[in-house]
Amino acid sequence: MTGTRRDGRAADDLRPVRITRGYTEFAPGSVLYECGRTRVLCTATVEEAVPEFLEGRGTGWVTAEYGMLPSSTPGRKRRASSRGRPDGREVEIQRILGRALRAVTDLPALGLRTIWIDVDVLQADGGTRTAGVTGAWIALADAVARLRADGKLAGDPLRGQVAAVSVGVVGGTPMLDLAYNEDAGAEVDLNVVMTEAGDFVEIQGTGEKRAFTPAELEAMLALARKGCMELLSLQRESR
Amino acid sequence: MTGTRRDGRAADDLRPVRITRGYTEFAPGSVLYECGRTRVLCTATVEEAVPEFLEGRGTGWVTAEYGMLPSSTPGRKRRASSRGRPDGREVEIQRILGRALRAVTDLPALGLRTIWIDVDVLQADGGTRTAGVTGAWIALADAVARLRADGKLAGDPLRGQVAAVSVGVVGGTPMLDLAYNEDAGAEVDLNVVMTEAGDFVEIQGTGEKRAFTPAELEAMLALARKGCMELLSLQRESR
Amino acid sequence: MTGTRRDGRAADDLRPVRITRGYTEFAPGSVLYECGRTRVLCTATVEEAVPEFLEGRGTGWVTAEYGMLPSSTPGRKRRASSRGRPDGREVEIQRILGRALRAVTDLPALGLRTIWIDVDVLQADGGTRTAGVTGAWIALADAVARLRADGKLAGDPLRGQVAAVSVGVVGGTPMLDLAYNEDAGAEVDLNVVMTEAGDFVEIQGTGEKRAFTPAELEAMLALARKGCMELLSLQRESR
Amino acid sequence: MTGTRRDGRAADDLRPVRITRGYTEFAPGSVLYECGRTRVLCTATVEEAVPEFLEGRGTGWVTAEYGMLPSSTPGRKRRASSRGRPDGREVEIQRILGRALRAVTDLPALGLRTIWIDVDVLQADGGTRTAGVTGAWIALADAVARLRADGKLAGDPLRGQVAAVSVGVVGGTPMLDLAYNEDAGAEVDLNVVMTEAGDFVEIQGTGEKRAFTPAELEAMLALARKGCMELLSLQRESR
Amino acid sequence: MTGTRRDGRAADDLRPVRITRGYTEFAPGSVLYECGRTRVLCTATVEEAVPEFLEGRGTGWVTAEYGMLPSSTPGRKRRASSRGRPDGREVEIQRILGRALRAVTDLPALGLRTIWIDVDVLQADGGTRTAGVTGAWIALADAVARLRADGKLAGDPLRGQVAAVSVGVVGGTPMLDLAYNEDAGAEVDLNVVMTEAGDFVEIQGTGEKRAFTPAELEAMLALARKGCMELLSLQRESR
Amino acid sequence: MTGTRRDGRAADDLRPVRITRGYTEFAPGSVLYECGRTRVLCTATVEEAVPEFLEGRGTGWVTAEYGMLPSSTPGRKRRASSRGRPDGREVEIQRILGRALRAVTDLPALGLRTIWIDVDVLQADGGTRTAGVTGAWIALADAVARLRADGKLAGDPLRGQVAAVSVGVVGGTPMLDLAYNEDAGAEVDLNVVMTEAGDFVEIQGTGEKRAFTPAELEAMLALARKGCMELLSLQRESR
Repeated sequence: MTGTRRDGRAADDLRPVRITRGYTEFAPGSVLYECGRTRVLCTATVEEAVPEFLEGRGTGWVTAEYGMLPSSTPGRKRRASSRGRPDGREVEIQRILGRALRAVTDLPALGLRTIWIDVDVLQADGGTRTAGVTGAWIALADAVARLRADGKLAGDPLRGQVAAVSVGVVGGTPMLDLAYNEDAGAEVDLNVVMTEAGDFVEIQGTGEKRAFTPAELEAMLALARKGCMELLSLQRESR
Repeated sequence: MTGTRRDGRAADDLRPVRITRGYTEFAPGSVLYECGRTRVLCTATVEEAVPEFLEGRGTGWVTAEYGMLPSSTPGRKRRASSRGRPDGREVEIQRILGRALRAVTDLPALGLRTIWIDVDVLQADGGTRTAGVTGAWIALADAVARLRADGKLAGDPLRGQVAAVSVGVVGGTPMLDLAYNEDAGAEVDLNVVMTEAGDFVEIQGTGEKRAFTPAELEAMLALARKGCMELLSLQRESR
Repeated sequence: MTGTRRDGRAADDLRPVRITRGYTEFAPGSVLYECGRTRVLCTATVEEAVPEFLEGRGTGWVTAEYGMLPSSTPGRKRRASSRGRPDGREVEIQRILGRALRAVTDLPALGLRTIWIDVDVLQADGGTRTAGVTGAWIALADAVARLRADGKLAGDPLRGQVAAVSVGVVGGTPMLDLAYNEDAGAEVDLNVVMTEAGDFVEIQGTGEKRAFTPAELEAMLALARKGCMELLSLQRESR
Repeated sequence: MTGTRRDGRAADDLRPVRITRGYTEFAPGSVLYECGRTRVLCTATVEEAVPEFLEGRGTGWVTAEYGMLPSSTPGRKRRASSRGRPDGREVEIQRILGRALRAVTDLPALGLRTIWIDVDVLQADGGTRTAGVTGAWIALADAVARLRADGKLAGDPLRGQVAAVSVGVVGGTPMLDLAYNEDAGAEVDLNVVMTEAGDFVEIQGTGEKRAFTPAELEAMLALARKGCMELLSLQRESR
Repeated sequence: MTGTRRDGRAADDLRPVRITRGYTEFAPGSVLYECGRTRVLCTATVEEAVPEFLEGRGTGWVTAEYGMLPSSTPGRKRRASSRGRPDGREVEIQRILGRALRAVTDLPALGLRTIWIDVDVLQADGGTRTAGVTGAWIALADAVARLRADGKLAGDPLRGQVAAVSVGVVGGTPMLDLAYNEDAGAEVDLNVVMTEAGDFVEIQGTGEKRAFTPAELEAMLALARKGCMELLSLQRESR
Repeated sequence: MTGTRRDGRAADDLRPVRITRGYTEFAPGSVLYECGRTRVLCTATVEEAVPEFLEGRGTGWVTAEYGMLPSSTPGRKRRASSRGRPDGREVEIQRILGRALRAVTDLPALGLRTIWIDVDVLQADGGTRTAGVTGAWIALADAVARLRADGKLAGDPLRGQVAAVSVGVVGGTPMLDLAYNEDAGAEVDLNVVMTEAGDFVEIQGTGEKRAFTPAELEAMLALARKGCMELLSLQRESR
């Protein structure tokens, strides 16, 4: 597959990824995940309790929250504490993050504890939600490793890896890993969360400007598979 | 495709649908949409103004809100006005509803007005969001017809129909149009919004209990196509 | 008493009433109550607990909430979940509903449970609060009957019936059961909640445009008595 | 009418009233109104604008707000600013206060301005809402007098006086002007707002513990009339 | 030190202070504290419980809240219950009040109870926060005395007195106890909370219009010391 | 002055400071400011408008907001967007930040624009508010330089530098630049904001565990002066 994009990538190229583990010191999992100019801080914190709705169920929980710093976007974003609640987009992303990580976690094996995932966007250039999934998995794995090193977990509650990528149709061409300027002009936008077995955890596709055909869906899924496999490999190399 | 479900349906059967247009008198589009025991009131109201972010753009807007009556579920749901904000699930559904209906609307052709779609759930037995899309399209079409009858619109801003259905994998079997008891036990859950050309407006699939394979995705998409085509036909017959 | 109104009624006529019990399936009491074009859904739900302020008092509770669907009025009403709190009028109505139903309930005989009354307005053409009281009593009675049929209550905690009606002075003439166009122009507005013994549970009268005389109060109370007696009779017939 | 109460009053006695005009210096109307141990600060402030819903109508407005200091009751009341909204009772009282004062104000004659009435309870021993009406009328009259003295108003927008009192049935006996210990044990509670012509502006009666008979209503209305006439006289003497 | 101010005071004069103990009846400490035209009601209420964060620590707590009545300022201030939260200035003042009073309280000796300090401003003419500290200490002492008289406290948890005053630089001259018109024009503003030993509990100085020199700081601290010593003496005389 | 601390510093030593300008790309001023383990991101964003309360005054504005990432502290901090408002400490810090930066800005010379300062704490080990002031001044200077380079400002609205440091008394010894473990045990805590002329912009001192003497205040101010002078020098070197 060929074609040139503003940053010189081919249509099926990922942006360059940098993964910095242990970026901050207090959370047992703390990863600065950068892909191109997008920069997200993903942390995993352990709370030795479960949410009220799980009390007495004998299972742990993984939950996620997502935020953007006011200065992370061109045109300052209003600060969350003065808005008073997560906006619709943040809520949507938090739900995807939580589902994606729970899909590869054996929650009863986690014990009666909650792992909080925080994804905070330091700089936003498209794909923050999928960057968040890919980076948060590493933070989660580091927090689980810490629990095991501390003798708090006998087995491994992680059943596998999970990574995510966005694809889209831009000017009629399916493309992998959209930067912001591409995303803003995309006709179709698809986010895929995938395991290393190539199975789907989440698929969210939207015809932003028009409906999309089954053939376009097939082409986008193939690109997403290629991208996720590369990211899953980068996750393994980072550890 | 065969197989029997608790209510006697085959795996690829829709629940019986009843469509009552003009259910209330004040909104120009007002549809009571029932599928099985799920019952949603879909209305379309016209406001002769556009949201602030569209001012000066020469285009109209379609937006949607979704709510559940406290008594709509077994186990009373806390009233929205005492919660103080839409919860995460409501926000997610409102965004899908809005995108689905905007996808088939020529917004500039709508003129400088907003059509508010309200989907209020009177009784919830699974599939309220997809019932909401299918019913809301009829309400939208009725409101547009009223605008045209009143001489406020020259052409037709509706570029086509849109309908939605849920599919899932339950006990290993892909099934169409899940009722609540099926949905609660589903391993995979997929909502599809489709046009009468068979193209996709929105696909949202989640591995609720495990990841799902490409083959399962294919089977679910086929069921969703069958269901949507039937619903698009029922929409046409209702008018 | 004679006189003709826009809908042909005499000054002392009620609007036609339709009562549909069992309108939805999940709440043990569920009544669609319609008077003229006003349409309210009244449900009664049982919670096997009492509010915190009653703990240890050995008594049950009846409480009520009231809401209007956005499409229930000409000119869409802003959705409750985006307003963040009940408005002043809703609060006032919720308090009247709760007091009216508690007045005829033997709360200790109810056991350590709460009955939640929800009145949701599907279409508003005046008199929704009094329609709510009259309809909610039937829903409450149905929920109590269900508790007794299920063997959860030995005796009958309902000490009697309660119904409500509005009266007003319009163009100098006292009138019964005001529709919206009459209410908007009324000089005086009086809501009365009454038992089948003809005693008062609640009286709320307001001089909307001018103060009202003792003679006007007397005439309005007589109309209210006539209306409530008819409504109490319709309640009995509906069961 | 005879009978002795805890504080030695006869059943038809008001509590002693003290009226201090000009209690604070910044508001043009500022009255400390005390009846027995109940102490409310009533102020009237002028804003040279009208609320949005009245713009272009050529009329002024009178609105009221009500609050209780945390230390005003035995058992500290949670501070309003940490509750985040007026509670149900406060909303109800604010609406009564506003209606009562608007009933005797010629709003168009007020000019394009709003008079804000604030009733703040320094000490609560029953009857704060009716004390608020009676005291607020004096504050309103003082603010209007200031506007006239400043040459901002040609005529007098006040069409008359308004005062309020509570009555109730306690231990089977109708009583005037209930103190807190009486109110808490009352079977029936009735608040009446009246003009000096003896006409009603507002009547709110509730059977707190049982329904009340037409005869009881008549007796309570007679007591209320006696009390209001005395209060209207005290208002005149205070000026 | 000489110099004349608008109200005739010398630069190092306090405004006249009036202290009325037992101003309201329900709170065990209740002080109307007036300095010049500033008038604050300071109360101390006892709750027989400690906040959650202190449970199991074997210590009591003193906390403070601060509010202004809407009519307390020229130009009505928006009511707290309609704002929904304390504003930034109120939060800042509440924190100072709490720290100041805890600084002279032996919290473990207080027992497992909380003393709530409420400072409510009836009229604001500058210096309400420092008036609040000085008045609240008296209310606190009265509440403690009540606890001791009731046999609920063996020893005295109050380790000493605390009083506060504002100083500033106005037109180049350091001045004590600024009234509102002085405060609004001050170049530098300093609030000091001091014990009778002349030690500091809190110092908050801000260059409102320009930075201030070490010499100015020294001069302001000397004025503050003089003022606090006089106020501490007035506190003792009032008891 | 001698004495050894947990991290080997003398009592009058600052922690090592690292300043990274241009840390993110979208804000014209963006500084990662680290002192010891405390790490704050300070950005300055330009909005070409002024707040409502300054309209028509012919002056610009500088305002500041402060937040902590949930993972910035040991023990995850609740996310701002789910708390719904800044907490008391955040409000206090935002007010200090804004005042400090406005003190060295010629607001009319800034033109009719607002500079938003955001201080976001990535890792908190004591002194985040003073680190925020020192880092934010650099971000402000960079944003001003960008405005001048873009030809949007003729002169320089910055009248000088401002830096801040904390000092305290720990175990009887005055110490400079407290780390978290020192701050938590400090008897007295003092934050000082200072200009390069050695004048004060803000002084905030609190006796956390006991009152402090004038001699202690003098010693702390001397330490603060030494620290601020070093920080002002580091600011200049960083540019």
